[in-house]
Amino acid sequence: MYRSHTCGELNASSIGQEVQLSGWVQKIRDKGFMVWVDLRDRYGITQLIFDEERSSKVLMEKAQKLGREFVIQVSGEVIERESKNPNIPTGEIEVLVAEVNILNTSLTPPFTIEEDTDGGEDLRMKYRYLDLRRNPVKNKLKFRHKVGMEVRNYLSNQDFIEVETPYLIKSTPEGARDFVVPSRMNEGQFYALPQSPQTFKQLLMVGGMDKYFQIVKCFRDEDLRADRQPEFTQIDCEMAFVEQEDILNIFEGLTRHLLKEIKNAEVDKFPRITYAEAIEKYGNDKPDIRFGMEFAELNELAKNKGFNVFDQQELVVGIAVPGAASYTRKQIDKLISWVKRPQVGANGLVWAKYNDDETLKSSVDKFYSEDDLKSWAEATNANPGDLILLMAGEVNKTRTQLSALRMHLGNELGLRKPDEFAPLWVVDFPLLEWDEETQRYHAMHHPFTSPKEEDFALLETEPGKVRANAYDLVLNGNEIGGGSIRIHNKETQAKMFDYLGFTPEEAKAQFGFLMDAFQYGAPPHGGIAFGFDRLVAILGGQESIRDFIAFPKNNAGRDVMIDAPAELDEAQLKELHLQVKL
Amino acid sequence: MYRSHTCGELNASSIGQEVQLSGWVQKIRDKGFMVWVDLRDRYGITQLIFDEERSSKVLMEKAQKLGREFVIQVSGEVIERESKNPNIPTGEIEVLVAEVNILNTSLTPPFTIEEDTDGGEDLRMKYRYLDLRRNPVKNKLKFRHKVGMEVRNYLSNQDFIEVETPYLIKSTPEGARDFVVPSRMNEGQFYALPQSPQTFKQLLMVGGMDKYFQIVKCFRDEDLRADRQPEFTQIDCEMAFVEQEDILNIFEGLTRHLLKEIKNAEVDKFPRITYAEAIEKYGNDKPDIRFGMEFAELNELAKNKGFNVFDQQELVVGIAVPGAASYTRKQIDKLISWVKRPQVGANGLVWAKYNDDETLKSSVDKFYSEDDLKSWAEATNANPGDLILLMAGEVNKTRTQLSALRMHLGNELGLRKPDEFAPLWVVDFPLLEWDEETQRYHAMHHPFTSPKEEDFALLETEPGKVRANAYDLVLNGNEIGGGSIRIHNKETQAKMFDYLGFTPEEAKAQFGFLMDAFQYGAPPHGGIAFGFDRLVAILGGQESIRDFIAFPKNNAGRDVMIDAPAELDEAQLKELHLQVKL
Repeated sequence: MYRSHTCGELNASSIGQEVQLSGWVQKIRDKGFMVWVDLRDRYGITQLIFDEERSSKVLMEKAQKLGREFVIQVSGEVIERESKNPNIPTGEIEVLVAEVNILNTSLTPPFTIEEDTDGGEDLRMKYRYLDLRRNPVKNKLKFRHKVGMEVRNYLSNQDFIEVETPYLIKSTPEGARDFVVPSRMNEGQFYALPQSPQTFKQLLMVGGMDKYFQIVKCFRDEDLRADRQPEFTQIDCEMAFVEQEDILNIFEGLTRHLLKEIKNAEVDKFPRITYAEAIEKYGNDKPDIRFGMEFAELNELAKNKGFNVFDQQELVVGIAVPGAASYTRKQIDKLISWVKRPQVGANGLVWAKYNDDETLKSSVDKFYSEDDLKSWAEATNANPGDLILLMAGEVNKTRTQLSALRMHLGNELGLRKPDEFAPLWVVDFPLLEWDEETQRYHAMHHPFTSPKEEDFALLETEPGKVRANAYDLVLNGNEIGGGSIRIHNKETQAKMFDYLGFTPEEAKAQFGFLMDAFQYGAPPHGGIAFGFDRLVAILGGQESIRDFIAFPKNNAGRDVMIDAPAELDEAQLKELHLQVKL
Repeated sequence: MYRSHTCGELNASSIGQEVQLSGWVQKIRDKGFMVWVDLRDRYGITQLIFDEERSSKVLMEKAQKLGREFVIQVSGEVIERESKNPNIPTGEIEVLVAEVNILNTSLTPPFTIEEDTDGGEDLRMKYRYLDLRRNPVKNKLKFRHKVGMEVRNYLSNQDFIEVETPYLIKSTPEGARDFVVPSRMNEGQFYALPQSPQTFKQLLMVGGMDKYFQIVKCFRDEDLRADRQPEFTQIDCEMAFVEQEDILNIFEGLTRHLLKEIKNAEVDKFPRITYAEAIEKYGNDKPDIRFGMEFAELNELAKNKGFNVFDQQELVVGIAVPGAASYTRKQIDKLISWVKRPQVGANGLVWAKYNDDETLKSSVDKFYSEDDLKSWAEATNANPGDLILLMAGEVNKTRTQLSALRMHLGNELGLRKPDEFAPLWVVDFPLLEWDEETQRYHAMHHPFTSPKEEDFALLETEPGKVRANAYDLVLNGNEIGGGSIRIHNKETQAKMFDYLGFTPEEAKAQFGFLMDAFQYGAPPHGGIAFGFDRLVAILGGQESIRDFIAFPKNNAGRDVMIDAPAELDEAQLKELHLQVKL
């Protein structure tokens, strides 16, 4: 037996006990006649003491030779500590060591194993197993586990069944690129790794499973951006005999449960806004509603007043920045430079200060009267003390730019509080979006999403205007889940493939099994999928998902710790009937 | 809203309620003036009634046009049923339909959706979504979910943390073949899919996670045998600061918990036998101990008595078959033919009947006296009424053959009861096994398994005799779990790679990250992995895993429903820098 207790459980009530502990040497203080060692394991830290007066010479020497991250096993008596540490549960005691057994030595770690480490991102990735010893990282993985357990127990209690769907499936041309897996036994053929279990969960509904969920890895071979991983985890859910309303209610319940259990946060009924409204009010289909600064469209109030710059533009739109009327010229200039950066790409900003004394002052006083400015203040819901900022340009571009500015200001002004949770549903997404490159419509969600019945006729005339039974769950400016009511009728599905540019042969080759299944009594069904990595990160109050993943890959899709991917030897390639062609 | 209730929940207490139900048409009985429909969903079956006297003509006509597996929604009143069915929870009531809405039609299914179907294996695989509607299949998936939840909750309550390890890892030459995944972004390089998360869970132990588990998909590109799948699910576990004894206790606890919660079966402390003992007593390292028939080695008692056939052989070994002394000549001949089949490959059987009157009669009476036969009876623990069967030949081969016969008889005699559970630990597995093909030793478990300290010296002299800290959990003749205490010391691990024929360069290229990790304070650790598909099947009292998997592949590794794997188009191959070479 390596231990009678963990390093987190001894306290004043243990005084006098003989105990065995095992763990890592966190810290050593050697005063010559006394040596203190902080012993660490997953559960905490316990102070060990070696004392010349009470310990043998051999033992003292052994203690003095210990190094950081050595793995040791000790036995001894729990005694009261002289200088207590009220900040840790074991702070009232220490263990007077009678025996020490070095289980393993350690080289000096390449970075400090402390709350705050001196290691850079690259080093921490390469030595991930050392980074995991640090509390912030370890705690994120424990947190992830806790969220996973809560999700499973909640859904299971609601009669959902977790069903494992296959990982070796078939490549489909729709959506992002697949990772593929050559088959040795079926020469020249390939499996694909799932981008999501979409078709399988629909088949489970056809199969009468009624309520399905799965916490499951998915794979997308996309060019990586920061904070995106080629493999990611999804909470995947599907239900039969449901309408959109049922799905929203069930998964609002799940989200509320998580917020309550995990964050002790009570949240009211989630607001719902349409996609169109979200774009109009926030320039964005995943608005952070922890703060206001809603867009006000000012075409009426700002155009045709002699200010040429506005007159020429499709849209003039503004926001009121709370308490920012006191911004200096320098601060405002900084904002203007910020929006002019290539990442945002705006031409500039027009500003108007709504001063505390209710006077108004703007960068365009030449063209606008105080009454004009007052009308802007009203439209943007500005209060005295606020700064009104205006942008103008092509509708979509300008909304996107102002949205970026809004989020930037939200961060700057500390309005995006990590401990505040503001979920909302965005509904009525467009069914299709126009793709300039291929000059045709693509499914905005995926080709199985059902159009709103009342918009069905528009498919022939204005496909871009057709709304889908599709919804996203947004939390604090992040899309944490999205889903739709699916098509469950063979003819509608065939028509949809046709709209999306599939020939009947292509549709049959790729999704024939689903179309076949729809001939044998498919029930109405719909579902949702949550990005689990993102959900956990947001519940954890963080923006980056990386530390919530035990072994993440870097931005080139590499695991730098194990050095993967790697080359295969010729024999292996031959067995797979493959040749590499660079 | 599609339903107010499911098809499983209405009963006498619901009489008089107006309800909405949705589901599939299971059965229609049309008497002209009355039509009964069995409506099915995941939760049960509810009888619907359409009655000329109480229903409109239009409604009657609609009912008469319904077909099997149509998806319908009905509303109506719950009424008392005339002829009650006490076998189902809804058997006291029926729903007098006021309205019916056909949600989807169905072609006639290719096989009957009943408890026992007329569909063959191939057809059921192709239309898996229809097979899933059948109770036996659906219930197996529900059962799987339940076992998974119990496992997770038990381990989580014991402070285990579920950590997701990566799926896109690095190919290793050890063990079975890897499935590989070409990387588009890292030209000419490949990821591999994990055969198990072995090295990652060891790194988690180095990282101080202390207690890890994961229910996780694993992948092996082996030539498929019946009831083996290229992707399978594992309950993967690892603990730090443990000895073999700790692991056996914890996972005996888990298994006992599952037997209790899932099967309501109380099991005593699990017996433990060594690998050597298992082979000697049962000819097999995963003995089914629900029944006896232990082997008795009879060299002393059967050789050198003038029976040439035995004298020449390395081993004479026998078993007593309970109550089989009354077997006819024909029955015994059938057994002899059975063992002579190429799948078993024995030369024949010698038999001795230990009659109820305690006389003995054998097929070799010419060579053996009744006293000789009595001594066989004693050695095999035969009772009057038993049939003693003997085999002879080369030690290993003969044990394997007799083991096959023992299991065959266990099945024939009904001794392998599906509701009885007899777990046991098999311990002290050999560390290495000799591979004739490559003419070198292979790791029997894997190269990270630690040898027993007391056998360490044997590594130099008799490597085949070195025992490992390795153990299997066996349930009813199936290995359901296996694991070991790992090497946690860099030097020992390097030595092990050397014994296994790795050059230092190969070891570094493949497992350098693990060896590196071992330099920074690796704790002693060990673990176990359970085959989840198998475990669930055995708990479900079944031999075959296939129906416990939602979408299994066939013996050629194909998913015949979605028709995968499949060919890729040239553009996709080009992007992956690959060419197919048949």
